[in-house]
Amino acid sequence: MHVVRTLSELRTCRAALRAPLGFVPTMGALHEGHLSLVRRAHAECAAVAASLFVNPAQFGPGEDFARYPRDEARDARLFAEAGVTLLFAPGVEEIYPPGHATGVRVAGLTERLEGTHRPGHFDGVATVVTILLAAVRPERAYFGEKDAQQLAVIRRLARDLALGVAVVGCPTVRDPDGLALSSRNVYLSPEEREQALSLSRGLRAAEAAWHADVRDAGSLRERVRREIGVQPLADIDCVSLADASTLQELEGRVERPALLSLAVRFGATRLIDNVVLEP
Amino acid sequence: MHVVRTLSELRTCRAALRAPLGFVPTMGALHEGHLSLVRRAHAECAAVAASLFVNPAQFGPGEDFARYPRDEARDARLFAEAGVTLLFAPGVEEIYPPGHATGVRVAGLTERLEGTHRPGHFDGVATVVTILLAAVRPERAYFGEKDAQQLAVIRRLARDLALGVAVVGCPTVRDPDGLALSSRNVYLSPEEREQALSLSRGLRAAEAAWHADVRDAGSLRERVRREIGVQPLADIDCVSLADASTLQELEGRVERPALLSLAVRFGATRLIDNVVLEP
Repeated sequence: MHVVRTLSELRTCRAALRAPLGFVPTMGALHEGHLSLVRRAHAECAAVAASLFVNPAQFGPGEDFARYPRDEARDARLFAEAGVTLLFAPGVEEIYPPGHATGVRVAGLTERLEGTHRPGHFDGVATVVTILLAAVRPERAYFGEKDAQQLAVIRRLARDLALGVAVVGCPTVRDPDGLALSSRNVYLSPEEREQALSLSRGLRAAEAAWHADVRDAGSLRERVRREIGVQPLADIDCVSLADASTLQELEGRVERPALLSLAVRFGATRLIDNVVLEP
Repeated sequence: MHVVRTLSELRTCRAALRAPLGFVPTMGALHEGHLSLVRRAHAECAAVAASLFVNPAQFGPGEDFARYPRDEARDARLFAEAGVTLLFAPGVEEIYPPGHATGVRVAGLTERLEGTHRPGHFDGVATVVTILLAAVRPERAYFGEKDAQQLAVIRRLARDLALGVAVVGCPTVRDPDGLALSSRNVYLSPEEREQALSLSRGLRAAEAAWHADVRDAGSLRERVRREIGVQPLADIDCVSLADASTLQELEGRVERPALLSLAVRFGATRLIDNVVLEP
């Protein structure tokens, strides 16, 4: 595996890779979720590139940019073992050199759900993903469905900016007890982790209700809230049932694919999870 | 010359072209200025692509989008004669399909000069140029220095978004009497056209003063205003002397490369011109 730090080295090494190239952008702190993306890329593409970049632009003031878990040596080893041939691990100044002034914004999609709780977050995501896709020029790029809104934003910008990449969404990977894998799970105390199981339990309860023909948006959200609300350490940011493509909140009877998603705080740690309900 | 209308045809044809590929994006209504870009690209590259797209996103309400001169047959003939091998001439829906929501914005640079008079204009330019550069993936892209602020914005976004293209600025082409070529010159009455010669005359007067060691920003702007202000049909939008790279307005003694630029209305027709003053 080649590790490159600059855009110019990246372009040189990328030109030597066979097509189709699969690409897995990450912020590191790898877990099985990331590695499932690499393995999928490896199965579908002739070569796999990955990136490792904790993007300051997508963290708000007071968020965990400074303490976000970083262990490049471990991440590089895991990437190499999973089949990555080119790893792009730039410093902040390589992506945002002095004078950097260009931002990418996806209107509408980014203003809903998480967007209302983390202003600017998706602008930071859209900008860095555009930069990475433009620099790497993969045929296919892989993202987790756990970050459902991020995935919708990236699908939209890849199409809108004619980046010529197929955006592939991959299923959320969970611990055996149901907790969705996240680099932020390491922040949880044992007690918080136990109570965080209510997130997937709540989603499963709503999903079961959906399969039993409960179609009222409010009732479905309520099933989720009921499960999480009783956990003393859980502080619900939002529980949303939204149109799966526009992310517009749904009311009344739900007749089309819907994204049931949530964000919950445990102390300073914010966890998200979701499930798509298909009629 | 191949003429293609869709992004997917464009990608197929582009893949068959030899490198380096030069690219000349235009809104059509071609004049010698555009053709000088094509000829430069032809001299420097193995193949030349051009685009023809009147971009609605860069016209404000009340501007001339509907009446902007369009003559595709003539433009296509001129492109072919000048050495273009691939012409991308999409409809508006190909570039902005329903649901299009992604915009590119260059902070700072776009808020100055023309940006204050044409809000949203440079966001429209930045977005469409990003789309075209991402879709065509040229090694080199050619733009006229007449649109000096546009050129600065495009240089910035190409670097910031890692588009991997060299942005080449080319000298303004003028009629023998000094009028900078513009697709909008056809709107001018003979009387307006005569008075519009004051634009280049004013710039030349300031340039002569500069070479005679006049360095005061206000005095240099004043030379330009003096020449144009006496024309009864001329309505000055702005005369600016700004730092050539940041476009920040300069006051007092000028010690570094400066962009002397102007925008002047003749009835509904808005003309721009500029000159760079090098210490």
